Amino acid sequence: MKIIIINSGSSSIKYQLIDMPSNEVICNGMIDRIGLESSNFTYATNSVKVEETLPIANHKVGLQKISQLLMDGTVGVIKSTSDIDAVGHRVVHGGSTFSDTTLITAEVKEKIRQLCDLAPLHNPANLEGINVAEEIFTSAKQIAVFDTAFHQTMPVEAYKYAIPNYLLTEHKIRAYGFHGTSHKYVSTKAIEYLKAANKPHKNIISIHLGNGCSITAVKDGKCIETSMGFTPVSGLVMGTRSGDIDPSVIFHLIKTLNYSADEVNALLQKQSGMLGLTGFSDLRDIQANAADGNKDCQLALAMNTYRIKKYIGSYTSALNGLDAIIFTAGIGENSAEIRELVCTEMDYFGLQLDKEKNQIRSKEIREINTADAKTKILVIPTNEELEIANQVYDLLLN
Amino acid sequence: MKIIIINSGSSSIKYQLIDMPSNEVICNGMIDRIGLESSNFTYATNSVKVEETLPIANHKVGLQKISQLLMDGTVGVIKSTSDIDAVGHRVVHGGSTFSDTTLITAEVKEKIRQLCDLAPLHNPANLEGINVAEEIFTSAKQIAVFDTAFHQTMPVEAYKYAIPNYLLTEHKIRAYGFHGTSHKYVSTKAIEYLKAANKPHKNIISIHLGNGCSITAVKDGKCIETSMGFTPVSGLVMGTRSGDIDPSVIFHLIKTLNYSADEVNALLQKQSGMLGLTGFSDLRDIQANAADGNKDCQLALAMNTYRIKKYIGSYTSALNGLDAIIFTAGIGENSAEIRELVCTEMDYFGLQLDKEKNQIRSKEIREINTADAKTKILVIPTNEELEIANQVYDLLLN
Repeated sequence: MKIIIINSGSSSIKYQLIDMPSNEVICNGMIDRIGLESSNFTYATNSVKVEETLPIANHKVGLQKISQLLMDGTVGVIKSTSDIDAVGHRVVHGGSTFSDTTLITAEVKEKIRQLCDLAPLHNPANLEGINVAEEIFTSAKQIAVFDTAFHQTMPVEAYKYAIPNYLLTEHKIRAYGFHGTSHKYVSTKAIEYLKAANKPHKNIISIHLGNGCSITAVKDGKCIETSMGFTPVSGLVMGTRSGDIDPSVIFHLIKTLNYSADEVNALLQKQSGMLGLTGFSDLRDIQANAADGNKDCQLALAMNTYRIKKYIGSYTSALNGLDAIIFTAGIGENSAEIRELVCTEMDYFGLQLDKEKNQIRSKEIREINTADAKTKILVIPTNEELEIANQVYDLLLN
Repeated sequence: MKIIIINSGSSSIKYQLIDMPSNEVICNGMIDRIGLESSNFTYATNSVKVEETLPIANHKVGLQKISQLLMDGTVGVIKSTSDIDAVGHRVVHGGSTFSDTTLITAEVKEKIRQLCDLAPLHNPANLEGINVAEEIFTSAKQIAVFDTAFHQTMPVEAYKYAIPNYLLTEHKIRAYGFHGTSHKYVSTKAIEYLKAANKPHKNIISIHLGNGCSITAVKDGKCIETSMGFTPVSGLVMGTRSGDIDPSVIFHLIKTLNYSADEVNALLQKQSGMLGLTGFSDLRDIQANAADGNKDCQLALAMNTYRIKKYIGSYTSALNGLDAIIFTAGIGENSAEIRELVCTEMDYFGLQLDKEKNQIRSKEIREINTADAKTKILVIPTNEELEIANQVYDLLLN
């Protein structure tokens, strides 16, 4: 069975064609700068790589370009669009409506549209991707996989804010959580790994550290708590987002320092986090400068990892136990320094890092705690596209 | 030595005359509704209680009324204002400037005035109390005790927000913490108690639950982390304040639901917390209704105590250890139910409540954990006035 995974952003499309159940990636690529004069287009199989710069006016033109390459006589991998059995769409916001992977119907599209208010940058682009894919892959099943779905098992005391009730009942203001596909993928892998080793696997904390960062408490395979909330701005310190902050700071900036609400929103989303603290947005630059003695960079690393440590403690109390923590995503998988800072002076929680194992780079799941540590420390490469393909495949089989 | 403690609010004065070092309260009382037609005035000694309703135009008239009663031939306790050795002023915001109890000079008053931007409701009223007390108690030393001072030992990674650096350096936006006098008083008491019992006392979490609520991590007697931040709105769920919330909720209310920034600020300060969740602001009403099956009240209690549990976990990681937790202030001292909910399913942290001991009501320090519990659970009545008197006394002796 061939499944194409489509992640449609406001001016980009990422795609991956996966054969199931072999999990083999047949081809992948992306288009960015859609709507501008010079969009970048990439297409790669095991044997060829195509890169072009050309004007791509909209998502429809983009997806047509992708389907042309897929069927191309020279570099193509299928004969006809009807060779594609299903399209798996990443949809950012499923609200409280979608707690699982869902076959797309007109009614489902309408519900995704109604959720645009909660994710104004993402859901409209996701919907556009669905509409265009329906026109091009006419015989394929269209299936939505929601970033929020894994978090729908959170109990109400975890997702509700202490604000008047009508804001939840009438306006749907609550914590939703994001990165759900990644947290589900790596926590499932962790449970498989721990089960196979005959180790406890009831209470797991998954730490996704990329440009966006979030942390999730998983009990018996189900999410019970996560750090991103109503939007992806809350929780950990991120590349450009502040994470948690006293809400009164916003009013002080507006009332006393004469910022507009839009300016404060942009400040917390785009000029804060590691960028605001250091002037750098790439963690590698920050680490290099910290090593050279830059105090802002050293402090930013300390703040970033101190916040993660506090969340590990917080979620251990939500779980009332801790069997393993997982590091995943770009920074979680690749920064030995961040992992070491997080695991320092955390022996109350049974975290004992094996510093040599922590330096190993690999694309495989690995355990980096000392042999006698009470709590496992795992590094697990995430793969959201494969998780989406798996979920689509499971839905079609059942 | 006689010390009068003055807590001057925007329309109120609370006062207490304490003999030191005996700690004996000679008299106490309060004035509210200052500036309105019918202010309430109380004055109580061991033997008499005076209550009056009268117009009190301003703080000066109020403090003159207090000094008249103090020197009254029938109910008075001193002969002349010169019998008062010192006036201890509670000042809410000491910013980063004041990390200790401070003798008030013109320069100190100017610095308190400069901090009015950070505490617009409190510091101006505190300053007014100082100015009036200087006129009335002319021979007394005037001393300021800051609510924020105890928290000034927090490390930078605890007090700094992940926002651009100039907001800290130029605009002093950071976490300050409040309730410092209370947290210092009860954590000092806890350390004395644990030392006397020859028990570990390095890592302590102090939980102040009144109408405002905050939680503080204390290492070796020093604050290293606290839940109130730039203002007292952040952290725990309070009587009418939201505590922690995704900052984007504010922008959503402004942009999508057309609230003004002032309306959202008032919503989070005055219409949220337990009131917003239940319609009741008094915890006793909420507990009674929860017992009668009111689902909103049951959920509010669950949310409130779940938040506290998460902070206990979070601060245990900041401390990398936990020897004792302290419950204090109105709710912390009196609500056995809240204490029980907080200590339920927290055995990972060594919290084992003795349910019978938890029911004891007392004005003394008491231990309510089971005999073999790893972590002590203490109930310690707070006494901010006595703590202020002690700090004033210590300053004058040294």
